[in-house]
Amino acid sequence: MSVLGDEIAAQPEAVRAFLTSQTAAARRIVEKLPPFSYAVIAARGSSDHAALYARYAWPQLAGIGMALAAPSLHTVYGVSPRLDGALVVGISQSGQSPDVVAVIEDARGQGRPTIAITNDAASPLARAADHVLVLGVSERSIAATKTYTTQLAAVALLGALWSRDPARLDDLERAPAAMAATLGAAAPVAALLGARLATAGALFPVARGTNLCTAHEMALKVREIVGLHTHGFSAADFRHGSIAMATPGTPLVLIAPRGPAAGDMHALAEELRARGADIVVLAEEAPATTGATWLPIGGDLPEWLSPLVAILPGQLLAVAIAEARGIDPDQPRGLFAKVVRTL
Amino acid sequence: MSVLGDEIAAQPEAVRAFLTSQTAAARRIVEKLPPFSYAVIAARGSSDHAALYARYAWPQLAGIGMALAAPSLHTVYGVSPRLDGALVVGISQSGQSPDVVAVIEDARGQGRPTIAITNDAASPLARAADHVLVLGVSERSIAATKTYTTQLAAVALLGALWSRDPARLDDLERAPAAMAATLGAAAPVAALLGARLATAGALFPVARGTNLCTAHEMALKVREIVGLHTHGFSAADFRHGSIAMATPGTPLVLIAPRGPAAGDMHALAEELRARGADIVVLAEEAPATTGATWLPIGGDLPEWLSPLVAILPGQLLAVAIAEARGIDPDQPRGLFAKVVRTL
Repeated sequence: MSVLGDEIAAQPEAVRAFLTSQTAAARRIVEKLPPFSYAVIAARGSSDHAALYARYAWPQLAGIGMALAAPSLHTVYGVSPRLDGALVVGISQSGQSPDVVAVIEDARGQGRPTIAITNDAASPLARAADHVLVLGVSERSIAATKTYTTQLAAVALLGALWSRDPARLDDLERAPAAMAATLGAAAPVAALLGARLATAGALFPVARGTNLCTAHEMALKVREIVGLHTHGFSAADFRHGSIAMATPGTPLVLIAPRGPAAGDMHALAEELRARGADIVVLAEEAPATTGATWLPIGGDLPEWLSPLVAILPGQLLAVAIAEARGIDPDQPRGLFAKVVRTL
Repeated sequence: MSVLGDEIAAQPEAVRAFLTSQTAAARRIVEKLPPFSYAVIAARGSSDHAALYARYAWPQLAGIGMALAAPSLHTVYGVSPRLDGALVVGISQSGQSPDVVAVIEDARGQGRPTIAITNDAASPLARAADHVLVLGVSERSIAATKTYTTQLAAVALLGALWSRDPARLDDLERAPAAMAATLGAAAPVAALLGARLATAGALFPVARGTNLCTAHEMALKVREIVGLHTHGFSAADFRHGSIAMATPGTPLVLIAPRGPAAGDMHALAEELRARGADIVVLAEEAPATTGATWLPIGGDLPEWLSPLVAILPGQLLAVAIAEARGIDPDQPRGLFAKVVRTL
């Protein structure tokens, strides 16, 4: 198996180890933080998709208002937007990206509380922040998998603690088992689907709400590993014009776990079927839409935790498409560096 | 000429008329608003790209912290995130989209100040907000052009007033002339480029900072009108993995007007040239990168206003690609409705 395949398989254990090692630390951080009016998160790439998860999860769990930082304001433009009332969080695999570090430094300069979520407790990001959640993931592949799902777990952990509902933490502790069940259930389907998409010219994952992060991260994995033209969409934004791309035969992956957004996703599946698109539905149960391929999600997590499982079939699919095209997933096309330092 | 072509040509006049009719109203709104810690904008589709412009322009002009709302939280999830300290702005062409209206209603329910930016002063969005800026644009095409650039002007107008620097308003008043100059300069190049891209399988506009809105809006126009696979990227995020799509011959449009982000864009042009990509540079002056095609920007606006001109060559290019493919730009593929109501 490829190194990437090994790392995909190791995600349930990585999340379990993170929760074991960092739950007490997260509890202390939440107790020590001063009150804040809203949260700002700075991140890039896959880490920005973990931030996108927080954008939906933290308001649902704890009513927190959310903003995603525009790091280039701080670096390229030399602007320091007012952060009155904000908690500022930086998420970075390596903790090295200067633009993400700049946002955290700016926040500290304005006297705002800060948290770093990173693999490296000695990194510039971790050193710049008041508090650190250490992901503890050792990842060799350029395409982030274990780091991403562990970042999601870190976001979920903080949200669960802010919710003051102990049942949320219990749910989160069930995530590793659900992840393992999903990997098992999705692997054979992903392999078949990868072969079917061996000559596809594009692929569009679509989601709504909590799983918007999944759509964007799935697209990024397929771009990174296969170089295929793909982008994730919100179902709402997709209807605002982009649906013109859903021509006959175009493959779309609709991410539709049980929950408040599922109805809208299944309605979109019907609209896309009427346009002749090639529809894959990622869900716990077989979709009702005629002709749609079912990519299964295992376990029984509540919707707010579903991004931890929903990305896994997407990672497997990216690897399967690569293998069907004769691309070595450990030597992805056009990617050279694990640590990207953007200013 | 197509209706869409007429509307593209009418943009300088639409922006001029908006500034004439609404500058006094905007000044009254800015005077009446209570203090706020940060601004939240709710929008969808092209209007969301105007919001993305505000995300960069308002911090640069007035140090305002910015958040883009996730409307589905309010509708699909029934969550009311705390908006303590926020000014809440809704942008919508029609003022009809229920999810955008829901964010404004939620903000009023929390006692926060609200502004609507819309064409229709009698729309649900306008009725829900404390204050309204009326765009005054009559647009027949499904693909928004005049409405988008007038929304940008509305964002720029509020930012200029918040800056308390009268030179900013003077700059904005020069925008219509710069827009006319850009349409004239870009039209012949866009026509040639459209023919060259008649068989392209994809197209990726890339920008940084202020013009990230331009990259996303250009991609949306090409998707809506041509149905081509395309998506806008931040140059920083593009380097985080997505650069794998920049295979030999892949067309990329680098949006690089003079200003703080131009250096990074020209560095990216060199990186992409080394990968053999087909590079188009949108800028005031011919690019230094060997083999790059120059798509000109006219006039002499400062960078903070450049989105008002930079989108115009993109609109012309979308029409030119459509015509080169035998697509009627007034009958775009797969789009049926001008007003999209998402919940």
